[in-house]
Amino acid sequence: MFEAAELGRKVSKDDYKARVPALRGELLEVQNALRAATAPPVVIVFAGVDGAGKGDIVNLLNEWMDPRWIVTRAFGEPSDEELERPEYWRFWRALPPRGRIGLFLSSWYSRPVLDRVYRRLTPEAFEERLNRVVDFEQTLASDGALILKFWMHLGKTAQKKRLKTLENDPLRRWQVDELAWKHWRLYSRFIAAAEHAIRITNRGNAPWMIVEGEDARYRSLAVGEAIRDAVRGHLADTEDARAAADARTTARPGAKRKGAGPVTSILSSLRMDRRVDPKDAESMIETHQGRLNLLERKAAAKGVSTILVFEGWDAAGKGGAIRRVTAALDARDYQVIPIAAPTDEERAHHYLWRFWRHLGRAGRVTIFDRSWYGRVLVERVEGFATEKEWRRAYAEINQFENQLVHHGIVLVKYWLHVTDEEQLRRFKERECTPHKQWKLTGEDWRNREEWGAYELAVNDMIEHTSTRDAPWTLIEANDKSHARIKVLATLCDRLERRLGLKTGRKSRSQ
Amino acid sequence: MFEAAELGRKVSKDDYKARVPALRGELLEVQNALRAATAPPVVIVFAGVDGAGKGDIVNLLNEWMDPRWIVTRAFGEPSDEELERPEYWRFWRALPPRGRIGLFLSSWYSRPVLDRVYRRLTPEAFEERLNRVVDFEQTLASDGALILKFWMHLGKTAQKKRLKTLENDPLRRWQVDELAWKHWRLYSRFIAAAEHAIRITNRGNAPWMIVEGEDARYRSLAVGEAIRDAVRGHLADTEDARAAADARTTARPGAKRKGAGPVTSILSSLRMDRRVDPKDAESMIETHQGRLNLLERKAAAKGVSTILVFEGWDAAGKGGAIRRVTAALDARDYQVIPIAAPTDEERAHHYLWRFWRHLGRAGRVTIFDRSWYGRVLVERVEGFATEKEWRRAYAEINQFENQLVHHGIVLVKYWLHVTDEEQLRRFKERECTPHKQWKLTGEDWRNREEWGAYELAVNDMIEHTSTRDAPWTLIEANDKSHARIKVLATLCDRLERRLGLKTGRKSRSQ
Repeated sequence: MFEAAELGRKVSKDDYKARVPALRGELLEVQNALRAATAPPVVIVFAGVDGAGKGDIVNLLNEWMDPRWIVTRAFGEPSDEELERPEYWRFWRALPPRGRIGLFLSSWYSRPVLDRVYRRLTPEAFEERLNRVVDFEQTLASDGALILKFWMHLGKTAQKKRLKTLENDPLRRWQVDELAWKHWRLYSRFIAAAEHAIRITNRGNAPWMIVEGEDARYRSLAVGEAIRDAVRGHLADTEDARAAADARTTARPGAKRKGAGPVTSILSSLRMDRRVDPKDAESMIETHQGRLNLLERKAAAKGVSTILVFEGWDAAGKGGAIRRVTAALDARDYQVIPIAAPTDEERAHHYLWRFWRHLGRAGRVTIFDRSWYGRVLVERVEGFATEKEWRRAYAEINQFENQLVHHGIVLVKYWLHVTDEEQLRRFKERECTPHKQWKLTGEDWRNREEWGAYELAVNDMIEHTSTRDAPWTLIEANDKSHARIKVLATLCDRLERRLGLKTGRKSRSQ
Repeated sequence: MFEAAELGRKVSKDDYKARVPALRGELLEVQNALRAATAPPVVIVFAGVDGAGKGDIVNLLNEWMDPRWIVTRAFGEPSDEELERPEYWRFWRALPPRGRIGLFLSSWYSRPVLDRVYRRLTPEAFEERLNRVVDFEQTLASDGALILKFWMHLGKTAQKKRLKTLENDPLRRWQVDELAWKHWRLYSRFIAAAEHAIRITNRGNAPWMIVEGEDARYRSLAVGEAIRDAVRGHLADTEDARAAADARTTARPGAKRKGAGPVTSILSSLRMDRRVDPKDAESMIETHQGRLNLLERKAAAKGVSTILVFEGWDAAGKGGAIRRVTAALDARDYQVIPIAAPTDEERAHHYLWRFWRHLGRAGRVTIFDRSWYGRVLVERVEGFATEKEWRRAYAEINQFENQLVHHGIVLVKYWLHVTDEEQLRRFKERECTPHKQWKLTGEDWRNREEWGAYELAVNDMIEHTSTRDAPWTLIEANDKSHARIKVLATLCDRLERRLGLKTGRKSRSQ
């Protein structure tokens, strides 16, 4: 794979001097255009052989372009706050917003490749880590981000020569440490791992470019020109996409679907007559709360985090159920995140970004009152997301949740279901109760008209995202007590299993 | 001070049951009103004797109110990311935005008081820490935040009894550890430190309330009612303030001052004819860049962070100066933060919040292209901030910078000065250079008309905020080379002094 990058390409000093000024101007120009259009962000990854100039080119790009609109990040040993979250949390945190360029050194490729070189990963585990990389980049690219990846290459002899030269330069000697030489001795292993990584992760929307690293002038021009051309293409694509979106909107002014009438969905199979005897309800809830309190303290002591997702029909009792959970917890240990319209900072990122940013530290409970599922529910039904967008969201969400679960987080997702008639009854009750009127808005009534469309969306959501690792728990919520008890009991069961306190018992989740 | 909180006040079960439902309704109501009005945030601190119910009351408030709009935080041992920033970084991070309530346990009071109890602080150092608390709360209160502080009290005998009771309760035994008993044995020292802390920090806009903690029903009602009343008052104040602000705007539609004509300011004393021979400039810049590169690597190795603030007239050459600094650094180690209009998340906080959030980890360089000084420059001149607001900003900024410097950060503040005529010349040049036209906007021309008002503002700014710890460096920038060299040289000098590489040399800063 790398033979073509060991040809000894060179650019003469004169040639370089002649070409750089125009290139700088063009790079500045595309950078300004990116910002002016608030186009989706540009993510550029640099990887490669030590001494092939990764750091140099990043510095040079910061010099050639306007460093104010560039985010440069290198990832060393993770901090303790980073270790307490899934691996990709720190990469999500560092992503540039729209209109900006992010340059990443020792990025998401660094650990998998080195772990394979040092044989800390089996070939299968390495494969799995690379698939995660593919998913991550795919997620960003689907959202419109431009992803470019440069492999800065040197042959084994060239690398040795380069390291020697650096060692003889008093100003750059610090760049060559024992580790660099150790890596050099492992050159062939390193190249094998890198070649495999590049092969697996070289996708149309996140391509690798292999750059010969021996001549600084050659590699600088090669990278600079590639970026210039790619960003130009990206700007044109963004413009096209916007024009197409405008055309669609104009062509179909009333594209919003009307309620699709009765649907046979997974929800129809729920036994909606489940009730709890009112005189037992309070004591049952308290029993589960006591159990939950004990379990969450054990989980906190072990650093096990919990994430709860509450979705459900309007007036299905999400707020009441959440309060029954929080009442059992110490307020120091949980945080409720109500999800409404995104802020402008959130809007400038991928839609999953705002959920990543709320992930709590180890041992905490994070409760989402509505969640990332808005993408495949309200955004789908109301047409805020295109069909392409919500369709690919299923896979993006599964990947996201998979990372949570693999980090050891207990993830419980509830859908609180009430029947059409019960919802109507509750709306009317709210209308007539002065201190509850604020809870009912015109939007709630409008959403009712879309019941059929929502039911279809819920059905699809459960079909696509109820996975073995992250199953949905459907809650029959016509009876509030039954709903609250099932919410608490499910959570307790899941915690017990995670903490190894119970085995073999069948889950209550669907 | 605490005698009045050892009277054995009690509320009977019946009385409690009768009063709680109304109180809950009222608390929910003020909480909703706070949110609806996006009133300045409410910050509530709980401190006191172990076992006096701090944790219980916080849990209860989360139960009584809507936990979705409450931020609850307790601060234990700082994480490594927190240790790499000034002490208050984690408190700023946790502050609630407008419309929300923050409940703080083991807050900014916890460490100073315990450090004093354990004699890790001298009385003088304790005093200094308490003054910092006062400054912090003053800063928030001046911005409109409501600050309430509850001291939950128990006498020594009552505390012993309480700890014993907890120990005998299998569900709550975990709350009493050896540390709780150790603190009990230090009771009188603890009370002495607390009394002093309360006395110093008990201000009109951040008052302490001492609550007798022996009876759970009494203390719950006392705290709940105090919060209800205070938030009601806060809502009324917010409304009044808004009405008054509207009235002011209506009364003085053209309140914006016109340029005040020539001013004799500190800027007039600058020798604006300072120049560098063009043929020496490039090599001088390179020499300083080499020096800077070496110094910043030493600083990074020692975990010493650098913060640079660039302020100056439009077209004074801030961008060019910044690029000469960054060219000497590794892009991994610095971040340029351009300050433009705040995002909506930033707008929902104190104006300093958005600068706190950008503070980098240890050993990094953070470069602010414009900064918190916008408050006393553009916001003052354009009338975006009221006179009261910008006047108190001087003290707020000094306190903020003081924390940076005391954390060991190298803080360098530059004002790039060009003369009126030189600015005009540069504007005209920009107009005539195609690839520079985008840099010049109508706003730049409008700002020129306010030259006198800005000059006054700059003069006041330097007068109030050029402190021994955080001096301003005035840069004569009519000659770009001179400006760049002085920027680099000043930074190198400051780093050398901080790293102990040079002593006794007089600073170049004003």
